Amino acid sequence: MKEELKIFYRIFTETKDAIEKFMNMLDPVIQNATDDHERLYYHHIFEEEEQRLSRLVELIPLISKFEKEKDEKDFAPTNNEFNRLLQELNLEKFGLHNFVEHLDLALFRFTDEERSTMLNQLRKVSYQDYQQVKAMLNEINSRFDTNYVDPHAHHDEEHDHLDRSGTAPVATPAAVNLKNKKGFTVGSLI
Amino acid sequence: MKEELKIFYRIFTETKDAIEKFMNMLDPVIQNATDDHERLYYHHIFEEEEQRLSRLVELIPLISKFEKEKDEKDFAPTNNEFNRLLQELNLEKFGLHNFVEHLDLALFRFTDEERSTMLNQLRKVSYQDYQQVKAMLNEINSRFDTNYVDPHAHHDEEHDHLDRSGTAPVATPAAVNLKNKKGFTVGSLI
Repeated sequence: MKEELKIFYRIFTETKDAIEKFMNMLDPVIQNATDDHERLYYHHIFEEEEQRLSRLVELIPLISKFEKEKDEKDFAPTNNEFNRLLQELNLEKFGLHNFVEHLDLALFRFTDEERSTMLNQLRKVSYQDYQQVKAMLNEINSRFDTNYVDPHAHHDEEHDHLDRSGTAPVATPAAVNLKNKKGFTVGSLI
Repeated sequence: MKEELKIFYRIFTETKDAIEKFMNMLDPVIQNATDDHERLYYHHIFEEEEQRLSRLVELIPLISKFEKEKDEKDFAPTNNEFNRLLQELNLEKFGLHNFVEHLDLALFRFTDEERSTMLNQLRKVSYQDYQQVKAMLNEINSRFDTNYVDPHAHHDEEHDHLDRSGTAPVATPAAVNLKNKKGFTVGSLI
């Protein structure tokens, strides 16, 4: 678990910096929006990332705290704080997923070299980090038998819809694969 | 606390139904999207609401469980499960806030009578519910001295940017008030 915590710490510290870069890019876009729809759209994304940032400000010290634990028995679902850590990590997996999509959406609009270069760079790192967090949490959740049900699992059955490998690498988010959604009903989640 | 739990139960049960209505409306929009940007945009909102739905499926029984507690001492931050309940409620306050914005964004696009009527109705209820949850949690967080810091508080200082009273009531989300954002830096959140 210590090795995994070290990786989580690195990923969530990096993504915290990435949020700040993204928010700083969005700020003048919101200030200079040409209509209400555009303003609300970027303001909404800005606020979602702001919410994520405030959660990470709590999560990162919690990861640090567990990194320093000497006793293996602290890494157990009988420890309430460890449970909280796992819950927060599962939540921030989606935070990373949603961030990748926010970046993809932004790449449709900000096609100038400066912003698209930055967005693509953040997108590349965030996508890798999301994949790594997802794989690690799959393994951790099964190890600790947490009964965790991933609400996105049905999207991943055949295809990772965020995967851009094999598609144009710049400013062209992959078509979202909705094949797996066929036959999916909201009720099936419950 | 019992009376408040009863209201939380009603609000989150209702919003769960509202999510399902909204997702069912978005589903054919995603299937029939005319380009990648449109498809990703609605798919992204769909997934965020799907994440929220899966959290509510856990939260609603937790609220029920606390509604049945006979002992007032269970409603205390020394009870880890009660802490978890408060954390989840604070998170779902943002879930409701983001839902109102998803509905506002949808109202820009779906101006036909059937969909705009449904969206406006969901918007009206969700906005009221968000305001009520926000007020109740402000009071509860101060009562239990949870050190909770609201990452949106700076937006609310002078004006509620989701408030549509006094603006056109249909399909015209209020201009986002960014006055309070002036002088805000990401660092000030931390």
